[in-house]
Amino acid sequence: MHQQITRDDVAPMARGCALLGTGGGGEVETGTLMAVRALAQHGPVPLVTLPDLPQDGLVLCLSSIGAPTVGHEMLHGTREPALVRDAVEQALGGTCVAVMASEIGGTNGLAPVAWAAELGLPLVDADGMGRAFPEVQMVSTNVAGLPIENLAMADVMGNVSVIKPVDWNWAETICRAISVAAGSYALLADNVVTAGRLAGAVIEGTVTQAIRIGRCTERAEDPLAALVDELGARRLITGKVVDVERRTGGGFVRGSLVLDGTGDDAGRMLRIEVQNENLVAFEDGQVLASVPDLISVVDIHSGQAIATELVRYGQRVAVLAWPCAPLWRTARGLEIAGPRAFGYDITYVPVEEAACVQL
Amino acid sequence: MHQQITRDDVAPMARGCALLGTGGGGEVETGTLMAVRALAQHGPVPLVTLPDLPQDGLVLCLSSIGAPTVGHEMLHGTREPALVRDAVEQALGGTCVAVMASEIGGTNGLAPVAWAAELGLPLVDADGMGRAFPEVQMVSTNVAGLPIENLAMADVMGNVSVIKPVDWNWAETICRAISVAAGSYALLADNVVTAGRLAGAVIEGTVTQAIRIGRCTERAEDPLAALVDELGARRLITGKVVDVERRTGGGFVRGSLVLDGTGDDAGRMLRIEVQNENLVAFEDGQVLASVPDLISVVDIHSGQAIATELVRYGQRVAVLAWPCAPLWRTARGLEIAGPRAFGYDITYVPVEEAACVQL
Repeated sequence: MHQQITRDDVAPMARGCALLGTGGGGEVETGTLMAVRALAQHGPVPLVTLPDLPQDGLVLCLSSIGAPTVGHEMLHGTREPALVRDAVEQALGGTCVAVMASEIGGTNGLAPVAWAAELGLPLVDADGMGRAFPEVQMVSTNVAGLPIENLAMADVMGNVSVIKPVDWNWAETICRAISVAAGSYALLADNVVTAGRLAGAVIEGTVTQAIRIGRCTERAEDPLAALVDELGARRLITGKVVDVERRTGGGFVRGSLVLDGTGDDAGRMLRIEVQNENLVAFEDGQVLASVPDLISVVDIHSGQAIATELVRYGQRVAVLAWPCAPLWRTARGLEIAGPRAFGYDITYVPVEEAACVQL
Repeated sequence: MHQQITRDDVAPMARGCALLGTGGGGEVETGTLMAVRALAQHGPVPLVTLPDLPQDGLVLCLSSIGAPTVGHEMLHGTREPALVRDAVEQALGGTCVAVMASEIGGTNGLAPVAWAAELGLPLVDADGMGRAFPEVQMVSTNVAGLPIENLAMADVMGNVSVIKPVDWNWAETICRAISVAAGSYALLADNVVTAGRLAGAVIEGTVTQAIRIGRCTERAEDPLAALVDELGARRLITGKVVDVERRTGGGFVRGSLVLDGTGDDAGRMLRIEVQNENLVAFEDGQVLASVPDLISVVDIHSGQAIATELVRYGQRVAVLAWPCAPLWRTARGLEIAGPRAFGYDITYVPVEEAACVQL
């Protein structure tokens, strides 16, 4: 296991986070630059597990909240992590002892390396999703039944808010509104609780998983085949992006992609619906895969996952889908982040049981 | 001077607050019910001045933030004042020693009586506007140069936020967004500072002024004439409401009224533009009165001011306009709440100098 995150881990971790982001969490170039700079300035970041931490210490579960299309152009400043930490410590009267990614997907998986380095804190080898999801309540601690208590936000201007919502859905509503007010991009410390209370309520090992996924494509002759193997994924289609619909509003980017099959898949057509992340893949009105399972669009040659805001006409891609963390397949997990939570009147079928093209 | 607010003060205070609200701050029926109930339950509310208070005690400047059209239907609960006080005391580590109205206009002028009673705190005989204004930054403490520090909000569901914005305009942007997220109505504790720091930065005596205005119409044979006298007002027109345009969105109600002159004013037509409050009165493209001076639409017989959300076709009214508190006529006051602050390319002319019909 990794004991620390160094400069050499950044590139593979970025590749892994892009895959686990299922299109969302922000394209990883920004996070890569942030992590490289912070590691150069502050040195390696210790990688820890929750039991390693003082159990009464607060864990900052950080992510950017907003539309990835905005975050791609409006970068974070360097003050937000400290503003959020100070606000949390003042509001809760405790001490922050570690940073954790709220979601391991995209830049939101990678940037916590930079934020941990800047705050001089270790990074927890875990996250709250095992992927990326667009909304605040779609997090493992909610599935695990942890009540929502305090969240904190800071934007690039330096505005800071501490929010104490009555439930997880109100957390999403209020934090989203604040994010939109700040230009659809802000730093969020999700439900701040102690390390002891997070135990059993997070998805463990996802930082090292992201690095492992990234490394597997680095070494491979056929990166796509290596990924399919590493992820236990199914290839839903190989083809060309022929249509992209993408609109930014209400603090999200929503839209859809259409892919035209090539080679063995010639004549097939796949549509993927998007809310920051890839949500559902349809073919001829049939669901091939859906949330909470992971659906990523990857470059056919490099195996690099392509973020929602960077997908464009003509890209040659494969669509991979693979099983989510088991907690998302529980009744409560599906209630929070299954297809119906996104407005699709679809009964969830695990990707390995759905009708999809075998490799 | 009043030493306390009792049940007998509520009706005249409501009439005075309605006048000072210039259409905004919420119609006073709701505030009347709130104040009557709270006074019955908790007894009279002591009325104090800032020097009476412990100078290091925190003053809660409270108001509802949102669209009066919403507040007219979605009432506050009873928990919000305590939620806001607790959040403020925890965030700032001080003790709240008094309630003050952020704005003396409308229900926002009257409800602080109820909030003070419920919290067991005295009410300061002052406010931050001497009238009502629609936006958070349009407050005397901003004109006086007090920096914005912490605000707190609570909504009817019980969600609580503490906001530390970088400037007054960001305070408005973020608080408005949270208000809209809560359904366009929430309780706001404006810039929370100590009594000592508020000295000289508020508009004094406005609670007793509101009561005095209300009492003058109670005793009068001709309420309208009594009001004109008490306020030092000009009657811009006497007429009938012939058009009301009103739309609720973005956390405000905006629109305009058109009045058709009657009697001596037959043949004249006045248009009033509204953002929660009455902002500018135009006749034939000429400005008769504008913010920050006060413009109120009053019932021709009773002298009762009519709130923005209750104005309707056919009402027989007079439009009164009178000078604002001197601080609003300073360069900084006009920058913050003059016509240009509302998007009107108009140079402010004091109402007593503008071309208007003399009584």
